[in-house]
Amino acid sequence: MPTVQVPLGNRSYEIQVGNRLIATLGERCRRLKIGTRCAIITDTHVAAKYGDGAIKALKIAGFTPTLIAVEPGESSKSLATVGKCFDLLAAHRIERKSFIVALGGGVVGDLAGFIAATYLRGIAFVQVPTTLLSQVDSSVGGKVGVNLKAGKNLVGAFHQPRLVLCDLDALVSLPDRDFKSGLGEIVKYGIIHDAALFQRLEKQMEPILARQSTALSSLVARCCAIKAEIVALDENDTGARAALNFGHTVGHAIENSIGYGKLLHGEAISIGHVAAAHLSARRLGFPAADVQRIKALLQQAGLPVSLKLTADKRDRLFAAMRLDKKVNAGEIHFVLAESLGKVVWGQRVPDAEVNWALDQIKE
Amino acid sequence: MPTVQVPLGNRSYEIQVGNRLIATLGERCRRLKIGTRCAIITDTHVAAKYGDGAIKALKIAGFTPTLIAVEPGESSKSLATVGKCFDLLAAHRIERKSFIVALGGGVVGDLAGFIAATYLRGIAFVQVPTTLLSQVDSSVGGKVGVNLKAGKNLVGAFHQPRLVLCDLDALVSLPDRDFKSGLGEIVKYGIIHDAALFQRLEKQMEPILARQSTALSSLVARCCAIKAEIVALDENDTGARAALNFGHTVGHAIENSIGYGKLLHGEAISIGHVAAAHLSARRLGFPAADVQRIKALLQQAGLPVSLKLTADKRDRLFAAMRLDKKVNAGEIHFVLAESLGKVVWGQRVPDAEVNWALDQIKE
Repeated sequence: MPTVQVPLGNRSYEIQVGNRLIATLGERCRRLKIGTRCAIITDTHVAAKYGDGAIKALKIAGFTPTLIAVEPGESSKSLATVGKCFDLLAAHRIERKSFIVALGGGVVGDLAGFIAATYLRGIAFVQVPTTLLSQVDSSVGGKVGVNLKAGKNLVGAFHQPRLVLCDLDALVSLPDRDFKSGLGEIVKYGIIHDAALFQRLEKQMEPILARQSTALSSLVARCCAIKAEIVALDENDTGARAALNFGHTVGHAIENSIGYGKLLHGEAISIGHVAAAHLSARRLGFPAADVQRIKALLQQAGLPVSLKLTADKRDRLFAAMRLDKKVNAGEIHFVLAESLGKVVWGQRVPDAEVNWALDQIKE
Repeated sequence: MPTVQVPLGNRSYEIQVGNRLIATLGERCRRLKIGTRCAIITDTHVAAKYGDGAIKALKIAGFTPTLIAVEPGESSKSLATVGKCFDLLAAHRIERKSFIVALGGGVVGDLAGFIAATYLRGIAFVQVPTTLLSQVDSSVGGKVGVNLKAGKNLVGAFHQPRLVLCDLDALVSLPDRDFKSGLGEIVKYGIIHDAALFQRLEKQMEPILARQSTALSSLVARCCAIKAEIVALDENDTGARAALNFGHTVGHAIENSIGYGKLLHGEAISIGHVAAAHLSARRLGFPAADVQRIKALLQQAGLPVSLKLTADKRDRLFAAMRLDKKVNAGEIHFVLAESLGKVVWGQRVPDAEVNWALDQIKE
């Protein structure tokens, strides 16, 4: 079973990738020597599938778990939900040495992680991501947070989990669209850090889409290892970690404005990858053939590479890009690729060229 | 002008203690090399007194400040207020390199600090405490947070300010009761760390109560230095920092249950000091004469040393003590003194003795 180390000094932890891991949650938590009281934070959909299994695993290992299930969906990543969960944690007498288990996708992980980061000024938490997207991305690295009306992830903290369990069995029952959304971030790891991974994806998309266990196991582990490597270089996101935002300047803007509730994260990011690839070619000489390879691979993964773009939607996209956390002194910045596997960040792009890039993703 | 260093590696900062400091806020912020956009978070009372001066000082130094004034009082230390402030920060385009100035007492400092700790996953902030209590205690050390219905400070973070400016001029117009409340924490520093400071307080209470500038300057600086020393030993509150909770087990419980809205923090803590002193004598041989000295000094400072205690109130005090953040596995813990200037923490005290200590503070 692949194990990936995230080396962050006294905040180091392991990511375990394998089958039937939720059943081992209790014994793995016991090895962390944390308190006996704990709260599983999840959503009602995930609770129906894995809640009983997680509770049973924790109880057998001697823990006293309580389960808090929020509504599924992005709207739960809010301060209002955070407040309700805080009150429940206090009612359940969750103490400083207690811990939180985040059981679910990215929304649950970000929400539960932020709650763990701030309840009693921070308590331990364990990530049990149940979607492909959260297994390869959001569960690793300690970025946790919630949304404001003004934008996604505008409130949060850096709070590393004590353990990440990527149970591959959870991927089998994932809706097709959610699974493919995860592939949007996986393609990103190829672009920003690993040309060999990119080639592997080109060759193995079929077994991956068929969710073959061996293909998924090495893929999830490789993506986690890349993320761990980047996070270890730049835990607090002041440098190298920016590379992880490839495709996200346009992708987040799509999510935050015109695509909200319509496009999944990986779908918006997929379109963002295409925009960033075109800009990379225009500004940094990234090979035109590789722009096409990126586009083709995303299409092979069943992801969108363009969207309908009226003048009004274009304006809203620009406004959203200017509100992004990555904005500095009002300028829009991009992560751009020099070649497959090699990116540079903090690239200021003039509005005219951003507009040109939007033309490239216009349906 | 006294300057106290808080040595915390790359989170180190200076505390400056002196007169007319708010007028120098802009130039001092400029030396920190932080962004130009900033938000002053304050309350409407403090804004009326010092808001214009702070804005002017920042503008002259080239900053673009905006002012956010919350309602005065403990009820603003809530998630609801945090949410409103977040929305205003986003509307004012506060970015990662922008910063927050906390201008006011402990409520404002804790609230604004928590907002700075979590907005965009953490931005810089500067503390400008305007009460004696916040100058000697809450503005130093990076503990920030808000209250839940279940208790005070149950949500928060460790987020160090980049600078603390203790403007002594702000103390002159402080209401008498607020000023004396600050003395409750100052007496604590004598008990836990500095017998000489305790003696000085016994001798100099008159000029201190008259708010003579030279007496206040060295007093505030000495308390900040003690706090800085303890915080440097234990930034994240897993050891030595517990000493700062002398008097707080009972004091917090009084605030959280029967005294809420009736007693100021320093007043509740003052009664807590007396309870802890009696327990110290009973359990650790702390001299009975020094118990009386503590009581006499607090009375000299105009602080309460007892309270009315019905059976019902006693029950509520116990319930509140059990909900404290410092509870571990349901046990109530105390910081107790071995001698003046020397304390030990994590002292488990049986309920019967806690009850006996409550008898000692019963009016």
